[in-house]
Amino acid sequence: MAIDLETRHIEFSTKGRTHIIDITDMVQNEINESGFTEGQATLFAIGSTTGLSTIEFEPGLVHTDIAAMFNKLAPYDVPYVHNDTWGDDNGASHIRSTLQGSSLVVPFVDSNLILGTWQQIIFLDFDTRARSRKVVVQILGKR
Amino acid sequence: MAIDLETRHIEFSTKGRTHIIDITDMVQNEINESGFTEGQATLFAIGSTTGLSTIEFEPGLVHTDIAAMFNKLAPYDVPYVHNDTWGDDNGASHIRSTLQGSSLVVPFVDSNLILGTWQQIIFLDFDTRARSRKVVVQILGKR
Amino acid sequence: MAIDLETRHIEFSTKGRTHIIDITDMVQNEINESGFTEGQATLFAIGSTTGLSTIEFEPGLVHTDIAAMFNKLAPYDVPYVHNDTWGDDNGASHIRSTLQGSSLVVPFVDSNLILGTWQQIIFLDFDTRARSRKVVVQILGKR
Repeated sequence: MAIDLETRHIEFSTKGRTHIIDITDMVQNEINESGFTEGQATLFAIGSTTGLSTIEFEPGLVHTDIAAMFNKLAPYDVPYVHNDTWGDDNGASHIRSTLQGSSLVVPFVDSNLILGTWQQIIFLDFDTRARSRKVVVQILGKR
Repeated sequence: MAIDLETRHIEFSTKGRTHIIDITDMVQNEINESGFTEGQATLFAIGSTTGLSTIEFEPGLVHTDIAAMFNKLAPYDVPYVHNDTWGDDNGASHIRSTLQGSSLVVPFVDSNLILGTWQQIIFLDFDTRARSRKVVVQILGKR
Repeated sequence: MAIDLETRHIEFSTKGRTHIIDITDMVQNEINESGFTEGQATLFAIGSTTGLSTIEFEPGLVHTDIAAMFNKLAPYDVPYVHNDTWGDDNGASHIRSTLQGSSLVVPFVDSNLILGTWQQIIFLDFDTRARSRKVVVQILGKR
């Protein structure tokens, strides 16, 4: 069976300030619609204040503990040269994004993403305002 | 020569608390057994307290310096909402995992992983207890 | 149209100490020369004091804000067991590299990398000295 590739994407709205969204079902849905059975979904988040990763998607981690770590590492409301230069307020958003990374590859077999029982795929919006977001889902494998 | 894909995995035991394991030989072995000559190994660590990356695998970095960085960023023995909610003790493990990332793609040519001389592939177990771990190794390329 | 794969690389000089280089045009050039139209560029940085990510490539972030974050997380001029063991001075470089990650996958369509308007691909050199660097660019997709 020959390997094929299809470039799809998902879109959704975010609230910013390290808003974390569970995108597992959206990614799984793209695999289902594509008809691929074994392969990998390459996710790439468009925009320089975004992040992709996995987490146990429960409110404590998602709403408080992750934010606390990032606030220690790169607080929002302190001076950044980026903010001073551009009259912007999202310097923290950019450096969080660079460290987190905006690319993720997740394999699937029998048309199902291979994830742990308590492991979901997340999009992290580090920007300081609500936005409309787009994540490329490039599917590669066997149909 | 047509491109093909094969989904394999490796399994091993870990001790937790940011236990770092060199999995380079295990990944290379999967490439050897698969018979692929040029392509990429996509690694995905199952579980939400895991991490994947590369390092110069020497005791100072592996046993002390990496742990010290993570202890500064997300100490184990401080309160987390995750722990309060679920009577758990691994809030730090989860947020380390999300920041580190559980996906890694390493190319190979002439059946050999392309790595620096002092660069090994590592699995990081951030959990607070010994576990049995599974990493998907999806190999894609030419045989 | 069958999927194909080609392993290429880019080379450049770096100054170290978290020197950040915009490699977007170099990666795009490899795609152009390869003749692929739709697929993904898998980047892998050779060496254990390297990093890959994306950023809005403007001087404030690139020269100051990112460095400040890493200096907080893993300062250069403090003791590391790695330095004590090997008479080296780049312990901070290694742990920054492991956390940042040295692998990145970016999709392209119509022969163009899919990136945000203010999102560039960067190489981060965390080492403490000037170096010559090599990044594998493995291109996978349709010609």
